[in-house]
Amino acid sequence: MDFSSDTSAPAHPAVLSALADINSGMEASYGGDAITQRLRATIKKLFQTEDVAVLPVGSGTAANALALSVLCSPTEAIVCHRNSHIACDERGAPEFFTGGGKLDLLDGASGKLSTETLKAACQRINRSFVHETPISTLSLTNLTESGTAYSASEVSQLSGIAKQYGLSVHLDGARLGNALVSTGASAADMVVRNKVDVLSLGFTKTGAMGCELICLFGDAQGRFDDLLARAKRAGHLPPKMRYMSAQALALLGNDLWLQLARQANDAALMLADKLVQRFGASLAHAVEGNEVFAYLPDDVSTKLFASGLKAYPWADGSVRFVCHWATSKAEIGKLDQI
Amino acid sequence: MDFSSDTSAPAHPAVLSALADINSGMEASYGGDAITQRLRATIKKLFQTEDVAVLPVGSGTAANALALSVLCSPTEAIVCHRNSHIACDERGAPEFFTGGGKLDLLDGASGKLSTETLKAACQRINRSFVHETPISTLSLTNLTESGTAYSASEVSQLSGIAKQYGLSVHLDGARLGNALVSTGASAADMVVRNKVDVLSLGFTKTGAMGCELICLFGDAQGRFDDLLARAKRAGHLPPKMRYMSAQALALLGNDLWLQLARQANDAALMLADKLVQRFGASLAHAVEGNEVFAYLPDDVSTKLFASGLKAYPWADGSVRFVCHWATSKAEIGKLDQI
Amino acid sequence: MDFSSDTSAPAHPAVLSALADINSGMEASYGGDAITQRLRATIKKLFQTEDVAVLPVGSGTAANALALSVLCSPTEAIVCHRNSHIACDERGAPEFFTGGGKLDLLDGASGKLSTETLKAACQRINRSFVHETPISTLSLTNLTESGTAYSASEVSQLSGIAKQYGLSVHLDGARLGNALVSTGASAADMVVRNKVDVLSLGFTKTGAMGCELICLFGDAQGRFDDLLARAKRAGHLPPKMRYMSAQALALLGNDLWLQLARQANDAALMLADKLVQRFGASLAHAVEGNEVFAYLPDDVSTKLFASGLKAYPWADGSVRFVCHWATSKAEIGKLDQI
Amino acid sequence: MDFSSDTSAPAHPAVLSALADINSGMEASYGGDAITQRLRATIKKLFQTEDVAVLPVGSGTAANALALSVLCSPTEAIVCHRNSHIACDERGAPEFFTGGGKLDLLDGASGKLSTETLKAACQRINRSFVHETPISTLSLTNLTESGTAYSASEVSQLSGIAKQYGLSVHLDGARLGNALVSTGASAADMVVRNKVDVLSLGFTKTGAMGCELICLFGDAQGRFDDLLARAKRAGHLPPKMRYMSAQALALLGNDLWLQLARQANDAALMLADKLVQRFGASLAHAVEGNEVFAYLPDDVSTKLFASGLKAYPWADGSVRFVCHWATSKAEIGKLDQI
Repeated sequence: MDFSSDTSAPAHPAVLSALADINSGMEASYGGDAITQRLRATIKKLFQTEDVAVLPVGSGTAANALALSVLCSPTEAIVCHRNSHIACDERGAPEFFTGGGKLDLLDGASGKLSTETLKAACQRINRSFVHETPISTLSLTNLTESGTAYSASEVSQLSGIAKQYGLSVHLDGARLGNALVSTGASAADMVVRNKVDVLSLGFTKTGAMGCELICLFGDAQGRFDDLLARAKRAGHLPPKMRYMSAQALALLGNDLWLQLARQANDAALMLADKLVQRFGASLAHAVEGNEVFAYLPDDVSTKLFASGLKAYPWADGSVRFVCHWATSKAEIGKLDQI
Repeated sequence: MDFSSDTSAPAHPAVLSALADINSGMEASYGGDAITQRLRATIKKLFQTEDVAVLPVGSGTAANALALSVLCSPTEAIVCHRNSHIACDERGAPEFFTGGGKLDLLDGASGKLSTETLKAACQRINRSFVHETPISTLSLTNLTESGTAYSASEVSQLSGIAKQYGLSVHLDGARLGNALVSTGASAADMVVRNKVDVLSLGFTKTGAMGCELICLFGDAQGRFDDLLARAKRAGHLPPKMRYMSAQALALLGNDLWLQLARQANDAALMLADKLVQRFGASLAHAVEGNEVFAYLPDDVSTKLFASGLKAYPWADGSVRFVCHWATSKAEIGKLDQI
Repeated sequence: MDFSSDTSAPAHPAVLSALADINSGMEASYGGDAITQRLRATIKKLFQTEDVAVLPVGSGTAANALALSVLCSPTEAIVCHRNSHIACDERGAPEFFTGGGKLDLLDGASGKLSTETLKAACQRINRSFVHETPISTLSLTNLTESGTAYSASEVSQLSGIAKQYGLSVHLDGARLGNALVSTGASAADMVVRNKVDVLSLGFTKTGAMGCELICLFGDAQGRFDDLLARAKRAGHLPPKMRYMSAQALALLGNDLWLQLARQANDAALMLADKLVQRFGASLAHAVEGNEVFAYLPDDVSTKLFASGLKAYPWADGSVRFVCHWATSKAEIGKLDQI
Repeated sequence: MDFSSDTSAPAHPAVLSALADINSGMEASYGGDAITQRLRATIKKLFQTEDVAVLPVGSGTAANALALSVLCSPTEAIVCHRNSHIACDERGAPEFFTGGGKLDLLDGASGKLSTETLKAACQRINRSFVHETPISTLSLTNLTESGTAYSASEVSQLSGIAKQYGLSVHLDGARLGNALVSTGASAADMVVRNKVDVLSLGFTKTGAMGCELICLFGDAQGRFDDLLARAKRAGHLPPKMRYMSAQALALLGNDLWLQLARQANDAALMLADKLVQRFGASLAHAVEGNEVFAYLPDDVSTKLFASGLKAYPWADGSVRFVCHWATSKAEIGKLDQI
């Protein structure tokens, strides 16, 4: 009963096959290889636009922090949800990569920002008051840290407010596939049509060994050289980039990433149902991706952990269960034995 | 005739097999996995010491910059060779990771520091003069950027001077295997007995897809928690670390890394011989690893590049040729056709 | 009717006399001068301890940020009140000087932290969880940003909790004089006996031209060399330091700073009384220093600003009035004309 | 016989008078005051241009580092003389303020860069090679660290090369007055007509207590808001800025700064003459400002220091003597007693 994390899951076999397939011959280093070129073409198709520049990196923290560092200067701030990954789980990476920029943390139910809260934050911007750090960038997370999903139209509204006040928009898509499957939106709908400037597109949690893409859209492409320089000095320009790009290609082919995300989401729904029906749990948030946050009766909690359950107790008193592409019905079925 | 770089070579098949072998089941994330534990045990054997702490990261720049950041504070400097990788090829990574530390660049023939030069630099240290940035760390590179190797006893002398003046010692071993093979020293001789504090141990250029180890020895292990925190905030704590560690294990098994390094070194010697004998080249530096730096007669240079040679013109007027584990006699033999 | 800020007030004449008095002859630069030595002796008397090291700098932001940079590493956080100066009014100086450290913001009525809130924050520390940034330093402000004062015993309790959980303690004393006068505590009681590690002791708002002291107490003195190096690289080691130190000496002599703080506090009480009695204002916070935060009836507010009042509208809807050593009864009396 | 430093000299009495003159009444903080406005107008006259924006700060290191931070990004480098103040005497301030930018150090006789050396450095720029840090900014120092002066036409040539290769130009004018007096150039000739983008204009060494101006010319004025934000977060936006600005005004009035610089230069010439004629010294560099670098016969050196001479032994074996506005003939005459 291991629901500890989608980063504890193995990679999908297609990812390893893809690595074997491209493991011969010489390829230019640092992104000059043919596989990375192929990835760039594939990404353009995915997002239905020519106006996108792509850099693969090895971790979600790297993707987010590098993305933010080309949007937010050292004297500006990023507005985001109080519980977002960039605020709580990256050990100050945004502050490090921006050179001392700040995070401006907003509240919001179930990991989501409301238009009211964002608008109020934007109205507080006072660029001429040198003492205060003005927000320059909105960072959204979809799937959120509470396992909920923004619909494309919700992102559109938040992004619209941000643009109205001159902010750039970053989307942390470490679990974007889960959100797309859950909301039914296409990648182009969720990202390009919503005027996201920079996307962190995660594949590690979906089924890769370790691969995330930083995608710059539209005018943000003008920051690509800066991104490369910042990636290099951060040790995030992998010399043998073909092995990074091949992972992404393997998952993008035939929409495998969405299929795997669907499997994970379905498992989460089944798991949630089990927790509620069999154990009397109540859900902390709607299950709109591959994560379940459940309040468990005390005796249930004790019994489950005693029986070997792996899952994280959360700060709000709930327990986080994470499913992934390889979560089997059998794994969930083990709960019936308790 | 592609001698452009050892980072343009494919990974050794044993590396991919190893990945496939460990690609099943759940493993704790961020280094809590069984494979990384195995790697830690293997590293202790390699260096014949229990006093070593290890962190795998995805690039040599990351390994070097993180290593240096736990040795050198923002108000101190790192002394190194003028042409070292950390000075010339990492886009300011040491400055970024140390928070603004400086590099103090020393001259030296064929990429090597002399004891005299180092001693002179140490004697200039004036910690009580607040205006000047004192050196706190010596960074050596072996194999050097000129393809030459320090013997274990040369490293011992340089390290000894550093220690005498209170400096820490970092060793950039992006091509350590090549240096070990070339000098006949063991890893323990070259590193542990020479009192290196932190080693960047490279496998990417030897035959991995992308894997380097940061090894802290002796008292430097006390900086391991700091290293982890810095790695995390730099996006260099790979969530699925098992895939990083498995690469290193594959190469360390049966000393495969040394065998591959020997193949690369042998190829370089054969290539150098060909360049000198057939083309009248003169060598810029002794060939003590997998790199050849050769001054080519003008007409030869023109002819070779016109015939499709891939190799880098160097700042000193020479051309750099790099061999690797997969460099075949046939590849070198193509030069006979010119 | 200018109650805009105590930094808009002129310096006390004694400060300028003191500058004239020491303006002759050669003095060693960068703190080697006789005046700075005298200051160091005076500070030891003030705090009744030999265990204090002192550095004068030119601004409160510099004092706070340098102080914090020797207590909090780049991978740690500072816990402080949500409205504190270091959080709201220094444009990210703590993040800049610590190299990317974080601020952990706590709520609290009237600018003050409660023991419960602080204890809860301390209990959340999880140093072994590498993803989260643990707090390492408590920063208190006295006088607070709401014009209220912590008593020595309140500081003692907060400091005690901090120490219990291994935190360092910083005190932002930009208006410490006002707090001492208001609470009746001695400097030694408020600071040394409460185990404050580093104090930012402000004189600019009290009556200097521009002078603040960074005071390291006890073990924190071991960070003095680091502080000097950090001050130098931040441009905060004034070459002609005698002119900085002379300002502090002028104000410390005969407790002039406390006398001036008392004048400012008395003016604030008189002003508050006037606002309440004559204009029906209600006070947002107790007036325990030289600042008054008052909610004004709308028509009063309009009339006052129309009549030339200078004071800052605050985010909570109140208006901030600041008095200073030179605030005259006549200035306050002008309100009777409205 | 104190020739240790011009920062050991007292301030000129006119500076203290000026402070007393403006020490009454309320003034807006942080640069909104009338005195700073007056300074801005005066600077426009001095440089004969409307296109200049000015910020006073408290130290030369602050002026240089802030100036460079608005010209050079974290992934770029500043090219300067190997012995320049920003390289040797500011404890890494440029690296700190730029967020990890690099210095690219060039050799040059007597503290001056040659056009050949600069051109060669510019030709090495390779912006498309992500591994290397390209230079983006030329920083010149006038008076140089060797006490020599660039003529306006020499600056023009160096600046011209820089502009041709797309570099910005910074001038460290900590002793600009001495260079102007020595070369006969006007401030407008030396700075504006030579297309300097940002000037650090020093008054501390000339006769202020502590005041330097950062002047942005032409297009660089577009960085003024960024400069203010960076100054604030570095603690270099003095709240009571009037006292900073008044110092500069006092020295600019009636060209007092140039008169004082002339006195210092004349003293240096007299001193140099004495060292050569009476003591058989040889000059390391031409005396073109207020500094003398002299090689002293061993017995002379011993005798002078034994007799109480204060002057700094330099790394090249010479001794540095610094004169200033208050260096009297009597002080120099004391050497006749030895």
